[in-house]
Amino acid sequence: MIKEIKDDENRIKIGSIIDSSFGKWMDEAAKKSRKVVFVDENTYEYCWPYLLTNFVALKEAEVIVLPEGEENKSMEVTMQVWQALSEYKIKRGDVIINLGGGVVTDMGGFIASVYKRGVTFINIPTTLLAMVDASVGGKTGVNLPPWKNQLGTFSLPQFIFCDPIFLQTLPEKELRSGRAEMIKHGLISDAKFYEEMITKFDPSSEKVIAKAVQLKADIVDRDPEEKGERKKLNFGHTVGHAIESYCTQQKTAVTHGDCVAWGMVVEAYLSKGLAGLDPQKYSAIERDIQEIYGHPPLHKNDVSALIELMRQDKKNTSEGLNCTLLQSIGDSLIDGYVSEEQMTNALENYLEN
Amino acid sequence: MIKEIKDDENRIKIGSIIDSSFGKWMDEAAKKSRKVVFVDENTYEYCWPYLLTNFVALKEAEVIVLPEGEENKSMEVTMQVWQALSEYKIKRGDVIINLGGGVVTDMGGFIASVYKRGVTFINIPTTLLAMVDASVGGKTGVNLPPWKNQLGTFSLPQFIFCDPIFLQTLPEKELRSGRAEMIKHGLISDAKFYEEMITKFDPSSEKVIAKAVQLKADIVDRDPEEKGERKKLNFGHTVGHAIESYCTQQKTAVTHGDCVAWGMVVEAYLSKGLAGLDPQKYSAIERDIQEIYGHPPLHKNDVSALIELMRQDKKNTSEGLNCTLLQSIGDSLIDGYVSEEQMTNALENYLEN
Repeated sequence: MIKEIKDDENRIKIGSIIDSSFGKWMDEAAKKSRKVVFVDENTYEYCWPYLLTNFVALKEAEVIVLPEGEENKSMEVTMQVWQALSEYKIKRGDVIINLGGGVVTDMGGFIASVYKRGVTFINIPTTLLAMVDASVGGKTGVNLPPWKNQLGTFSLPQFIFCDPIFLQTLPEKELRSGRAEMIKHGLISDAKFYEEMITKFDPSSEKVIAKAVQLKADIVDRDPEEKGERKKLNFGHTVGHAIESYCTQQKTAVTHGDCVAWGMVVEAYLSKGLAGLDPQKYSAIERDIQEIYGHPPLHKNDVSALIELMRQDKKNTSEGLNCTLLQSIGDSLIDGYVSEEQMTNALENYLEN
Repeated sequence: MIKEIKDDENRIKIGSIIDSSFGKWMDEAAKKSRKVVFVDENTYEYCWPYLLTNFVALKEAEVIVLPEGEENKSMEVTMQVWQALSEYKIKRGDVIINLGGGVVTDMGGFIASVYKRGVTFINIPTTLLAMVDASVGGKTGVNLPPWKNQLGTFSLPQFIFCDPIFLQTLPEKELRSGRAEMIKHGLISDAKFYEEMITKFDPSSEKVIAKAVQLKADIVDRDPEEKGERKKLNFGHTVGHAIESYCTQQKTAVTHGDCVAWGMVVEAYLSKGLAGLDPQKYSAIERDIQEIYGHPPLHKNDVSALIELMRQDKKNTSEGLNCTLLQSIGDSLIDGYVSEEQMTNALENYLEN
């Protein structure tokens, strides 16, 4: 059975893609359109054959394999793909299908949204992180190192199909990465879901994925362009993005979710003084996250570099570092402004010598 | 006196910028924002001093000089500017001011709309073409040679200030270029305005500029994303863009307006057979345009290269070359599909041996 997420236009479908409207849409609405599929090396090997076997209409598709990894979510790759689309003579009425994790859906969405001022695209996320986070809300982007997602658009895919079958081949660390965003959805808006994500996490459950997606879709629908409430979803990300950028620079392997989890600990710590989070609740969050994500591979002398990266965060204004803060577990506050001194203290408290 | 164009949100102001709301907006709404001004070498010399003298708030602005000309409306330049904005630590709440012709407003709008997923920008067009065409309707773009505006977004500036004072230093050929789009606005939607543009064209008149802008704004407001009626504005452009791309490749100097004017003759010729345009009216259009724009610097043996360029036009579908056609002077029809054979005949009829 396919679960439809109630978003603005029921774009998000969760369940087996074989039972979904994907095939019908391809045979009818997109019948005259040429199809281009963006994959990465992994999804080309593990996911594309499944799709190709089940949907005859994809036989004629052009397949473009994007290089793996955050460091290739770049304008250099984007430029090559635009050139390829032009050479294939892809037109405005054609369709791009993004089959992959967040790098593929973010970059593929960006490529599609700017090519000829916007080509229809469909997302088929294949990682837990991409299903519960990147797939929802229309943010596309590429990096301009050292800044993550410095370039991008707000552009909604025509549809998003989340099929848990793709999670079967996913390494454990990738499931852990997606879990961090699900924990975050709980922390900012649903205490019961937070408990569930900590104590009995089951990533193969359509119901759990649907709940995580619904929590995000509800927020995004009320504020699609991130003028207000949507900023709640940035909890953990001011610090998390800085850690991720820094580790990428240092060539230390980390996942996005690991970094967000560590970022949530620091921002929860700040929430004690700045948003009235109960110190005992903070301690519980710290312990819960420590148990799953351990400690970041950073030390006190990395703090100034992290602060420098945070200064470039898109969310900042002249008032300080913009953070979402927790008032309680399941209840959050946007536009908390944190001084660089407060942030330095929080990081020094968290990181080891 | 400032004329306000009635568009969706009264974004477009025509008249002396000194008497406009620009200064007040800069002192109030944008007080806390940093300002970045994009100019080209010409507007840096001729227009920027005028603005700087009259608006104190601009003293602190960062000025970025974009290289002149259509061949520099490129991703290479765009990338350098994104890098510069990042290095200046420009934030999402800051403001970009595009001061220049269509290259500056199109490329500057694109740069602003993608940087951090969208920074507020203001257009101050300084050429007639940019005032009556590029300034209205939110199309931004850069070229991916040989294709014009292959990459872009639909993004509206916060405001557009059209001050005829900037036209005083404009070369005659640039006025002629803008005039072509004004002639087009008449041909597709207002026979009286067409007559006026042919017989008593006065580019220094605020009233005339306002009328041309209003004709376009009315169409764009009814169809901002070019799903239907807005395609009327493409009259002359299927052929015109191909001529412009081809001449650029050949390093033959032409203006956008010259190319659109020649394109309008060819598309009016096709309108006789395909949209019922009265042959006498066609002859009148051909004669009127010939008198102002002469004949294109092309020959019959250039036709196949032009057709090849038209195949890449964003507007095409699998049904053929998409053209807007005239039913009469002041009355047009969208989605006319022209076969390559019909187009070849029309071009061979128009071009010399």
